[in-house]
Formats: sequence, structure tokens, C-alpha cells
Amino acid sequence: MGATRVIETLVLSLLLFLSGSSATQRQKTRAGPRLPCKQMVFYFHDILYNGENAKNATSAIVGAPAWGNRTILAGKNHFGNVVVFDDPITLDNNLHSIPVGRAQGFYLYDRKDYFTAWLGFSFFFNSTQYRGTIIFAGADTLNKTRDISVIGGTGDLFMARGIATLTTDAVEGDVYFRLQVYIKLFECW
Amino acid sequence: MGATRVIETLVLSLLLFLSGSSATQRQKTRAGPRLPCKQMVFYFHDILYNGENAKNATSAIVGAPAWGNRTILAGKNHFGNVVVFDDPITLDNNLHSIPVGRAQGFYLYDRKDYFTAWLGFSFFFNSTQYRGTIIFAGADTLNKTRDISVIGGTGDLFMARGIATLTTDAVEGDVYFRLQVYIKLFECW
Amino acid sequence: MGATRVIETLVLSLLLFLSGSSATQRQKTRAGPRLPCKQMVFYFHDILYNGENAKNATSAIVGAPAWGNRTILAGKNHFGNVVVFDDPITLDNNLHSIPVGRAQGFYLYDRKDYFTAWLGFSFFFNSTQYRGTIIFAGADTLNKTRDISVIGGTGDLFMARGIATLTTDAVEGDVYFRLQVYIKLFECW
Repeated sequence: MGATRVIETLVLSLLLFLSGSSATQRQKTRAGPRLPCKQMVFYFHDILYNGENAKNATSAIVGAPAWGNRTILAGKNHFGNVVVFDDPITLDNNLHSIPVGRAQGFYLYDRKDYFTAWLGFSFFFNSTQYRGTIIFAGADTLNKTRDISVIGGTGDLFMARGIATLTTDAVEGDVYFRLQVYIKLFECW
Repeated sequence: MGATRVIETLVLSLLLFLSGSSATQRQKTRAGPRLPCKQMVFYFHDILYNGENAKNATSAIVGAPAWGNRTILAGKNHFGNVVVFDDPITLDNNLHSIPVGRAQGFYLYDRKDYFTAWLGFSFFFNSTQYRGTIIFAGADTLNKTRDISVIGGTGDLFMARGIATLTTDAVEGDVYFRLQVYIKLFECW
Repeated sequence: MGATRVIETLVLSLLLFLSGSSATQRQKTRAGPRLPCKQMVFYFHDILYNGENAKNATSAIVGAPAWGNRTILAGKNHFGNVVVFDDPITLDNNLHSIPVGRAQGFYLYDRKDYFTAWLGFSFFFNSTQYRGTIIFAGADTLNKTRDISVIGGTGDLFMARGIATLTTDAVEGDVYFRLQVYIKLFECW
């Protein structure tokens, strides 16, 4: 009898717990430590067209403010310049390593008084390890590390969500930069 | 007594199962087959401004690399061209069917050695069937079918997430193309 | 005995309920009322560069169709104009209030017959109240209120998802506008 009562209470608590989680089904608030379900590190390499490097360039200025042009990045921290890119992705920080995919999309410089940029792009994988895309959007800054959002994915990265921590690994004038991208997914399907 | 013990074990397993799912609440890993909660098929029609079709054009080049202009798509697979569009959405593949909404946003060509593009756009519905928007982002390629991400939605498509499979249904030179968009949502609110 | 049987039934129902929710784990369909887990209201202020206000301008035309330029918004409801912005965010509708962050990104006008725009931008917070970013994408219209999507977030707004209701709070010609942004998050981590 006593045991039965205990179990009854347990079952009722469970039911309450479950109905509680039903009630909040449309309002997801998560507690507890954040544990990525997938982590990956890549590098990508951007060589900006400057009028003389048509063959090697992987990106080009395609938009500029009235005071700028499409061959040289504008003053005021390049405010208003829009750049389209198709950059090789490598597993290490060597530009000449065999690419495992392409980083494709755009960035635009969006601050007059110091450097910030807005990024919308994909990682496009078509290798033995991964097939599919990861979609990114977010704000790039001068901070040593900064986070952008992983807003979607397809193929092996279907429905991915998470963040990507960017670190500038190298800069050579206005022509070359290399970013390390540390991807942490928190939704994996 | 034996029955009570069995139930006790069951209840304990349940509690463990539940506490387990609490522990991983911030790290969603889903298993099992992928079943869309909503599927829709639409077509949209893009007529690019070419200097002579101002009346019918639904899109226009608004960005170009230094070697291009805004009336004719640039060489090198149109690398660097940015196009803004406001295209009619139809239920079948007939340009002259009554539109059920507008596909609005941009695409940019982002590869020099063959054709790829990056898309950011919305489907804007204001019909008896749907009211609201679906937001898309992702990489378009020359593959027969290719997936982009559904990254959000409003109104009837509130909080939508999923993928959309694009198929080129028709191309007429650099002026007209028609895409079939097969939307599969995996998060429906 | 009767009590045990009742409990057995309850436990079995629970197990079925749980296995049911496992089966649909990859297809989230939520029912019930929509309750935001976080709500915030901000204003942001856009001063468009017009050739004469270089010092105060917070945004600039960086893309235009063939028939437009980058100093004056084009005809046909500015179709094809792409604008990059870095706008102050305030808690009230006073341009001169101390900013709590920056709204940074782009909008592009995407309709010839009346005004609509497509937005991709971030709220960048670096104040005592919030640190981090919220990422937005979606369609802006002439409606009194219109919803865009919150597609991601970082820092204090980690993994944010939801919608933002935009209301035009003021417009002064083609030079200044102020938007109220009422953010409602439905996924909070």
C-alpha cells in the first residue's frame, strides 16, 4: 500500500512535469551548460582584386559609396564597400593546401570610425568528409575573436544552428587575409 | 509485490530518461527519419533588366566588379554581379498565371570558373491561402537540384525552418529564368 | 491490485507518450499559444548620405541600377538601391539619446510599383545591459507594422530566434528615418 502510494506520487509528478513542458512547448527556454553537438575548425583565404591580380584574386569590390570606386577600398574604414568572394577553405592555415570546400558570399564594411563588417556567406563542401552547406550571417569586428551565427545548413549539415568564432590569422595589406573559423553547432539533426 | 517492483523500475527508468533529456537540453541532437511538417511547391520568374526591357523587367543589376557594368552581366560567369529582384510567384510554371506572392531580395554571382550564386530573399504572401513571409539564404549552383536554407518566417509561416530544393525549370539567355522551389519545413509553430 | 493496474496503465501511457515524442523528434510541430521568452524594444536612426551631410550621415547608397546613381535614391520607389548603414540604437525615440548599440548591415529597395525593402543586419550591443549581437533578415513594407525574422544571436543573445515588429516612427524626406523595433524571442538559450 505504502509502495503503491509512493509510485502514485511519482507518476503524478511525472505527469505534471510533462504537462508543464507541453504548456511551454512554444517558448523554448534552455538552462544548463552549453555543449556543442558538433565542432569543426577551418581556414579561409581571401585575395581581393586590386586591378593587377585578376588571375589570383578570389574576391572583388562590387559596391562602393559615392566617394569610392571598385578597384581600391574606400577611405573611412572602407565604409560602404561591398565585396563578393569565392575563397578556398583549408584544414590548416596554408593557402596552398588542398581546399576542402569554398567560402562563398559577400561582406560589406559598415562603420566609418573603425573597422566592422557584415557577412553573409556559405561554406560549400563537396569532399569525402562532408557534402552540403553551412550558412552564416553576422557582424565581424576588430576584436581578437568574434562570433557570428550559423543560421542554417543543407546535406550533411542539414538544419545546422550554432555560432562560429572568427579569428584573423593573417592580414597582408588590403590584398590578403586569412580567417580561422571555429564552428560550434548546438542543433544537429 | 513483484508487479510493484516492476513499476518502480519503470518509473525510475522514466525519471532517468527525463533527467537525461534535461541534461542535454542545450544540445539538440535528433535521430530518426526526417519528416517535413509542411511541404509547398512554387515557381518564380526572373526577368533581368538589359537596357531595353524596362517595362517587363523584374530584376536589375545593382552591383558589378570593376571590369563590369550594370546593364550587361559580366564575364567570368558573372562573378561579382549583384542583382535585386521582385519576381512573381506562381503555383504552376506559367509566367502569366495569377501570382500568389512575390519573391523579393538579391542574388550575387560568386564564382569565376563556373556558375554559382548566393541568394538572400523572401517569399512574401498576401493571398487567401497564406499571409506572411518565408526567409531564405543559401548557395545556388549548376546542379540539377540544390538545397538552400529556410532561416525564418512570419505570419502563417511564423518561425519556419527547413530547406528548399531549387530546380531550374527554364532559362532563356541572360534575360529570363524560372525556378521551381520545393519547400520542406522541419520546424512548424 | 486495482491500484497497481491503474498505475501500470499510467506508466504505459507515459512510455507511449515519450516514444511518440521521440518518433517525431525530427519534425517539430508546436501547438498552443505563442509566448515570447524575451521581449525588447529599441529605436534606430538612419541618416542617409546625400552628397552634403558626410559628417552626420550614418548610411550610404552603395549599389544602384543602371538608371540610378549613388548620391540620390533612384526613381521607381528606389528599386535597386542598396544602402549600407551603421545606425545608433537608442532606448527611446530621441536621436540624441545615448546609444546602447549599433544597427549595422544593409537594406535594398526591391519593388518598382511601391515601396518595399529587404533587410539583413545586426544589432551590436556592447553595454552594461547586453553584450552580443542579434541577427535579423526579412522584408520591410509600407504596412504600419511588419514582421521580420530574428535568425540568430551571439553573446547574451546566444542562439536567439523569433520575430521583430518594425514600426516607422518618423520619416524626414529621403534623409532621415527612425524605426521602432519590437523584438520577441521564442527561442532563448
